[in-house]
Amino acid sequence: MAKKTKPVRPAARLPKGFRDIEAAELRATQAMLAAIRETYERYGFEPLETPAFEYTDALGKFLPDADRPNAGVFSLQDEDEQWLSLRYDLTAPLARFVAENYDRLPKPFRRFATGTVWRNEKPGPGRFRQFTQFDADTVGTESVAADTEICMLAADTMEAIGIKRGEYQIRVNNRKVLDGVLEGIGIDPADPEGERRLTILRAVDKLDRLGAEGVALLLGPGRKDESGDFTAGAGLEQNAIEKVLAFVASGAATGDATLDAIAPLVANSESGTKGLEELREMQSLISAAGYDDGRIRIDPSIVRGLDYYTGPVFEAELTFEVTDDDGRPVRFGSVGGGGRYDDLVARFTGKSVPATGFSIGVSRLQAALARLDRQSAAATLGPAIVLVMDRAELPRYQRMANDLRNAGVRAEMYLGTSGMKAQMKYADKRGAPCVIIQGSNERDEGVVQIKDLIEGAKAAQSIADNKEWKESRPAQVSVPEGDLVEEVKKIIARHQG
Amino acid sequence: MAKKTKPVRPAARLPKGFRDIEAAELRATQAMLAAIRETYERYGFEPLETPAFEYTDALGKFLPDADRPNAGVFSLQDEDEQWLSLRYDLTAPLARFVAENYDRLPKPFRRFATGTVWRNEKPGPGRFRQFTQFDADTVGTESVAADTEICMLAADTMEAIGIKRGEYQIRVNNRKVLDGVLEGIGIDPADPEGERRLTILRAVDKLDRLGAEGVALLLGPGRKDESGDFTAGAGLEQNAIEKVLAFVASGAATGDATLDAIAPLVANSESGTKGLEELREMQSLISAAGYDDGRIRIDPSIVRGLDYYTGPVFEAELTFEVTDDDGRPVRFGSVGGGGRYDDLVARFTGKSVPATGFSIGVSRLQAALARLDRQSAAATLGPAIVLVMDRAELPRYQRMANDLRNAGVRAEMYLGTSGMKAQMKYADKRGAPCVIIQGSNERDEGVVQIKDLIEGAKAAQSIADNKEWKESRPAQVSVPEGDLVEEVKKIIARHQG
Repeated sequence: MAKKTKPVRPAARLPKGFRDIEAAELRATQAMLAAIRETYERYGFEPLETPAFEYTDALGKFLPDADRPNAGVFSLQDEDEQWLSLRYDLTAPLARFVAENYDRLPKPFRRFATGTVWRNEKPGPGRFRQFTQFDADTVGTESVAADTEICMLAADTMEAIGIKRGEYQIRVNNRKVLDGVLEGIGIDPADPEGERRLTILRAVDKLDRLGAEGVALLLGPGRKDESGDFTAGAGLEQNAIEKVLAFVASGAATGDATLDAIAPLVANSESGTKGLEELREMQSLISAAGYDDGRIRIDPSIVRGLDYYTGPVFEAELTFEVTDDDGRPVRFGSVGGGGRYDDLVARFTGKSVPATGFSIGVSRLQAALARLDRQSAAATLGPAIVLVMDRAELPRYQRMANDLRNAGVRAEMYLGTSGMKAQMKYADKRGAPCVIIQGSNERDEGVVQIKDLIEGAKAAQSIADNKEWKESRPAQVSVPEGDLVEEVKKIIARHQG
Repeated sequence: MAKKTKPVRPAARLPKGFRDIEAAELRATQAMLAAIRETYERYGFEPLETPAFEYTDALGKFLPDADRPNAGVFSLQDEDEQWLSLRYDLTAPLARFVAENYDRLPKPFRRFATGTVWRNEKPGPGRFRQFTQFDADTVGTESVAADTEICMLAADTMEAIGIKRGEYQIRVNNRKVLDGVLEGIGIDPADPEGERRLTILRAVDKLDRLGAEGVALLLGPGRKDESGDFTAGAGLEQNAIEKVLAFVASGAATGDATLDAIAPLVANSESGTKGLEELREMQSLISAAGYDDGRIRIDPSIVRGLDYYTGPVFEAELTFEVTDDDGRPVRFGSVGGGGRYDDLVARFTGKSVPATGFSIGVSRLQAALARLDRQSAAATLGPAIVLVMDRAELPRYQRMANDLRNAGVRAEMYLGTSGMKAQMKYADKRGAPCVIIQGSNERDEGVVQIKDLIEGAKAAQSIADNKEWKESRPAQVSVPEGDLVEEVKKIIARHQG
C-alpha cells in the first residue's frame, strides 16, 4: 500500500484442489472428531501433534498408494538447501517421532493424532489435495492383542459417531497368510525384485469393484476396462489364479470356520502357518470380547493396497447401500483401514520396531454420516438477533444482547447500518430462531417484541394476504423487558427439542 | 523397499523451527480452544475453515509485521506454474473468501477461525515457523459497535479460559486520532510516500519496552541499543516529539477523562475529530455494557505495528508480572490484538468492504495460563492398566479392560510382551491411577488385586524397607472380580477430586 501504481487486482479464487469448509459442515466435523477422540482416549491412547513439514528424506518413499505412482508431495527447499515436504499421512511423521524419541517413550507407545495431510495430486471432482486423517497406532509390541484392540477401537468408534451395529463391519486378514498362498503358487514373497507380489495384492484389492472375473484377468493376462485402457496382469497360470481366488473366497459364516477353510491352503508354508496362528489368536480375543457378533470378522479378501504391511491388515467397511454415479446400488465401502507395519521405524534406526495402526478418512466418514442423515444437528440454530430500530439506542440494544449471552444464549445485536427490511433478511440468512424488536413505542411501555422466525415462516405459508398477516402478527409476542431472556430461552428450547 | 541397495538411513530429526506437541500440552490447548470457541459462538460468530494454501498473489503483500521486512512465506509453484503460498495469518484468506463469495454472504459476515499459520522466518529459541491463531472478524459494516463488541468478546474470552478480571485489560485506541496528532505536527497521514508515519507508529509501539525516553529517540534522531545497533529515527523536531508523547501519555483514570484530554490535541484535524467521535461512541457502548470497570480501557499509547489498520485498534494485555530473561519483573504483555481494516477486500474487488477483527496468539496465551498455573488439569490421569500375568489368559484381561471402558473408564490391557517389572514401569510412565493384577491364585479365588499407584507412591516415601513394604502392601486391595469396575472408579474419583 505504500506505493500507488496502477492497481493490478488479483482474482479472488481458491487454489485448484482446495476448498473452504463452512459452518454447518465444520460443526458436524467437530462433533464427529470429538466423538472419535473420546473413544480413542478411553482406549488409553495419548494425543500427539507433529508439524506439517518433515524433511523429505525422513518421509522416505512410503507413498501410501502404490497404484498411483505419480502421486506426489508438496516440497520446497529450505534456506540451508535441505528439502522439506508437507506430510502426506500421519504414519510417516509418527515413525520419525518414535525414532527420534525412542528411549524416553513408554513401550508400547500408544498415540492418536488428527490433522491435515496434503497430496500433490491432480485434483478432480470430490478429490482434494488437502484433507484430514484420524489415526491411532500402537508402537513397540509384536503382540496381535494390539491389532485386535485396534479393530475393537474401530468398531466402537463407528458406534460412537452414530453408525449402528450391522451397518458397519471391521474386516481382518493377515499378509502372512496371503504370502503363504503366494508361496504355494511359487512366488517368493520375500523376493525384493518381486513386483509380481504387489501386482497380485492390487488385483485382489479390487475384488469389491471388479468381481472375481475382473480380478482373474488382473491375476492373469491383464484387463481392458470400459474406456479401453489396458492394465497389465500378474501373468499367473490358470491353476494359480484359481488358488488365489479360492483363498479370497474362503470367508465362511464364523471366524473359526473361515480359519479352518484357510488352513489347508497354507499348510506347507511357514509364513502362512504363522499368519494363521496370528489370526487364530485374534479370533479368540475377538470372541472373548464379544465382538464376533458381526462387528469384527475375518475376511480373506481384505488385502489393502499398501506395500508396507507385514501382518494383520484391517478395513472398516460400511455395509449399507448407496447409489453410485450410474444409479446402481453399491455398498458405501471403506471408511478407514490399517494394519501392522514392522519396518517403518527401522528406516531411521536400523532396529525393527513392531507397530500397528488404523487411519480414518475423516471427510469420507462424514459423507457416510450425511448419507445416513445422522450428522450432529447441534448448533444449527443461528443467534438470536436484537434489531436496531433507533441508532441512538445502540447501548440499550447492545445490553440486551449481552444479557442474553450472559444467560448462555447465542445472541448478537445487528451490527450493520441498514434498515428494518435488510435486518430481517439478515436474521433469516443467519438462521436466527428469533429477533428482538424495540422501537420507541415499546421502549416507552418498557416492553420488547419477540418474533419467532421459525414459527413465523410456518405461519406465513397458511396466511394469504398482507392485511391478515399484519392483523394477526403470528409468532410474535410482546413481553416486559425484564422477561426478555426467559422468553427467548423458551423459543430456542422449542426449536431445539 | 522394492530394491535392496546399501541402506542409507535418514536421521530422525524435526525440521528447523518446527516442534512436536505432546499429550499434556495438547490437551491443555484443546481445552483452551474449546473455551474460546464456545465464547465466539455465543457472540454469534460462525466457524469457517480455509485451506492452508492460497495463491501467492491473493495473499498480496500484507505481511503482518512491517518490523521484519524479511519475514517470508513458504511458497512453491504448482503444476500450472502458478505460485502457491502457505497462509501466514487468517485475515488474508478471509479477505479472499469474502471477495470470492460476497454476494451470497449475510452482511455483516461474522466468522471465527482457528488454524495453523506458517512463517518462513529464521527460527530461534521459542520462535517457531508454525503456530496456531484464533481469529474473529466482522466484515461488512463501518459501525464501531462491531469494534466494541470485539473488545467485549476479547474480555469475555480471557475470563472464559481462566484469566481473572484485573489480570487482563483490553486497550483501545483509534488510528484516526493518531493521524490527527500527526497532522498537527505537519505529517500528512494519507501521503503514500509517507514512510515517516510508519516509522512513528513503530516507535510508539515500543513504548512498553523502551519507555518515553527511548521512544523520543526513535521519533527524533534515532537510537542506539545496548548491543550498539543503531535504528534510524523519524527525524521529528523536539516540539513535535513532545506533542506525540503528550498524546501517548494522555491516558487518564476514566475513559471520558482520557477523551477530554485527547480532544484539544486533535481539534484542528478532520481525521482526528472523526476518530475522537468513534472513540466516544465506543466508550458509551462500553460503559452501557458495564465493561468500563477496567476490562476495556481507552489508551492512547496503543498503536499496533500493522500497516493496514484504518480506525479502532485494540490489544489484549495481561497485566500481571513475570520475570524476564534478566530476572527483572515485567508485565506479561500482549496476547492478542486487532483493529479495523477497511481496505483488504478492496484489493480484489476495488470495492471497499469495512471490516474489523481480533486475533489471539494461541501458544502465547497458553504460556500465560501455564505461568498462572491455570491450565486445565482434565485427563492428566493415564489409563487404568490391566497387567498381563499369564499370556494364556489374554482374553480374560482384555475383557476386564473392556468392562472398564464400557463403564466409561479410560483403560487398557498391557499390550507389550515384557514381564511384571517392565509392566509396572510402563504403568508409572503412563501416569496410570491404578493397575489391575490377576495371577493364577487370584483367578482361582475369583478376585483381582487393584493397586493404587498414586497412593502407593506416597506410601513408599514413608516406608523404610522392602520387608515392611511386602507385609503391609499399602494402597493395594483385593476385591471380587465382579467389583472391579466399581473399585477402579472409586480410585479414579479419589484422584480427580
